Amino acid sequence: MGQAQPLVEIWRGPICESLHRGHAAIWDARGGIVAAWGDPEAVILPRSACKMIQALPLVESGAAREFGLGDAQLALACASHQAAAVHTDMVSQWLGALGLEAETALRCGPQEPRDRAARDAMIRAHKSPCQIHNNCSGKHSGFLTLANHLGGGPEYIDLDHPVQRSVLAAFEGVTGEISQGTAIDGCSAPNHATSVTGLARAMASFAAARGSGNARDKAMARLTRAMAGHPHLVAGEGRACTNLMRAMEGRVAVKTGAEAVFVAIVPETRMGVAVKIEDGGTRAAEAAIARILVGMGVLDPAHPVARHYCHGPIRNRRKIETGYLKPAEGLADWRL
Amino acid sequence: MGQAQPLVEIWRGPICESLHRGHAAIWDARGGIVAAWGDPEAVILPRSACKMIQALPLVESGAAREFGLGDAQLALACASHQAAAVHTDMVSQWLGALGLEAETALRCGPQEPRDRAARDAMIRAHKSPCQIHNNCSGKHSGFLTLANHLGGGPEYIDLDHPVQRSVLAAFEGVTGEISQGTAIDGCSAPNHATSVTGLARAMASFAAARGSGNARDKAMARLTRAMAGHPHLVAGEGRACTNLMRAMEGRVAVKTGAEAVFVAIVPETRMGVAVKIEDGGTRAAEAAIARILVGMGVLDPAHPVARHYCHGPIRNRRKIETGYLKPAEGLADWRL
Repeated sequence: MGQAQPLVEIWRGPICESLHRGHAAIWDARGGIVAAWGDPEAVILPRSACKMIQALPLVESGAAREFGLGDAQLALACASHQAAAVHTDMVSQWLGALGLEAETALRCGPQEPRDRAARDAMIRAHKSPCQIHNNCSGKHSGFLTLANHLGGGPEYIDLDHPVQRSVLAAFEGVTGEISQGTAIDGCSAPNHATSVTGLARAMASFAAARGSGNARDKAMARLTRAMAGHPHLVAGEGRACTNLMRAMEGRVAVKTGAEAVFVAIVPETRMGVAVKIEDGGTRAAEAAIARILVGMGVLDPAHPVARHYCHGPIRNRRKIETGYLKPAEGLADWRL
Repeated sequence: MGQAQPLVEIWRGPICESLHRGHAAIWDARGGIVAAWGDPEAVILPRSACKMIQALPLVESGAAREFGLGDAQLALACASHQAAAVHTDMVSQWLGALGLEAETALRCGPQEPRDRAARDAMIRAHKSPCQIHNNCSGKHSGFLTLANHLGGGPEYIDLDHPVQRSVLAAFEGVTGEISQGTAIDGCSAPNHATSVTGLARAMASFAAARGSGNARDKAMARLTRAMAGHPHLVAGEGRACTNLMRAMEGRVAVKTGAEAVFVAIVPETRMGVAVKIEDGGTRAAEAAIARILVGMGVLDPAHPVARHYCHGPIRNRRKIETGYLKPAEGLADWRL
């Protein structure tokens, strides 16, 4: 594997305090790689940044249509939500409509809500986090819907379950690679390795889909539209995915993943972007994807969201500005 | 500045998912550098890892004696505590004894308690975090005690306040370097730059102090003893500093700092250690310092704490083991 490239600097006063290195690639569905940083052939786990791929069989198979899923539910199937009431209410209703009891059907494990109001309400009620609060509970609701359609036992996260077999086939199809390994994600679902280029290529496939082709083309176009049209369902208030998609007003779908993966789907240029920060630092993945989207001309550099993710500032406990983020040389001035 | 060296790998299933690079140095008070990784001349901000240096003037000046501070209070002055009741009660009593009202006297800013019980109690009481809950409130209590002794206005965090002038003099004295720059820390106190070697040299000075020499020697020996003897005051239950010091049973003092700094004071060999992970990833600083302490022969590799910080495991929301940490080549087999 080649060297990761410095992508984001963290400054505090006159000192460059920390530095994040990484890999990134932009793939044009009509022409291959158009830009790359670090080693675009680096093998990574996409983690939650591939949730739209994991949701592909749900739509492509006809399961979403069979169960009458709307775009909001599909956005939630692609989400790392923060368990605000809007998210958990939707998951409850969705699983209820399938005739399932959430806590016995889900296999994602419990997680404390990241949404502050939901968290505080839970603590005040002396309740414990449930699986429905897991940031992946929408994805798992999608898996359960697909399981209902395809058949198979209740362990829908097993690698040989029809659900996961169809996910792997979709994953290898859109990345254009045989996966080099499978790991278990934080939510217990399988997560398949790909190169950074493979992940960018997959995002470009979504970007190029126009909804007028085969079942996969239709499914990809619908999932991109669902994500870009429901920024608050894909993450939540204050989160990077939500803020970035709102700032781009439905033109682009973006998704973060654990250990500092970030992807973007840019339909207007049929391009896909994948970023992986070598060290897993989320702040740097957010900065790098924001700066790349600025360089691609789809995020206004003067927008407060672009300035926030590309440049900080970093404030301390008294809200004093103590430092800032800065895209490193090689990314700072890049233009497509 | 030279290249950071791979120090810690994060594995998930068959994939090395993330990699942390960094710098580290071990200084022997009797012989200079005895081991180094990455670039030991890299200039860093030590952040909270230099709290024992920031507490030096408190003891050295006689202020600690004047106000009858015990070792427990000195440990708290060196702490990044998590605002458990034991920590905040001590800060309240300390400032009360000085005749100060905590929230008007402190300049560290409010912070939500990291201690789960304290946090939940605060939320249930519909209260907001105060400055007393700031992880640095013990350090600031030390500053206020020193300000009482030295004189100066209430803005004891200003660079030209007698408190901070004495801190800078102590810092440059024990690091053996003129600081290359000053930034503002998360708690609004000045934080001075040094090289990794300078920070290791400072820790070696603490390690070599026997309490039988001049005022500085006595102060350093007392602060090391205070920290190593009160692991739960320096951080809190479940935290790396506390766990590591307990595992070494008072033989070694350790301290973490934001952006992945970690230091150790090893009196029995008169050695000091400083680690800085380039990307600011705390998990890697914890792993690196633990592995170095194992290699120095002061942390038993078979102790559960050593195994935990050096090797993981990483568990998911269902407590399934999904991966592990691993010291990288060059650190994994290192012995002093």
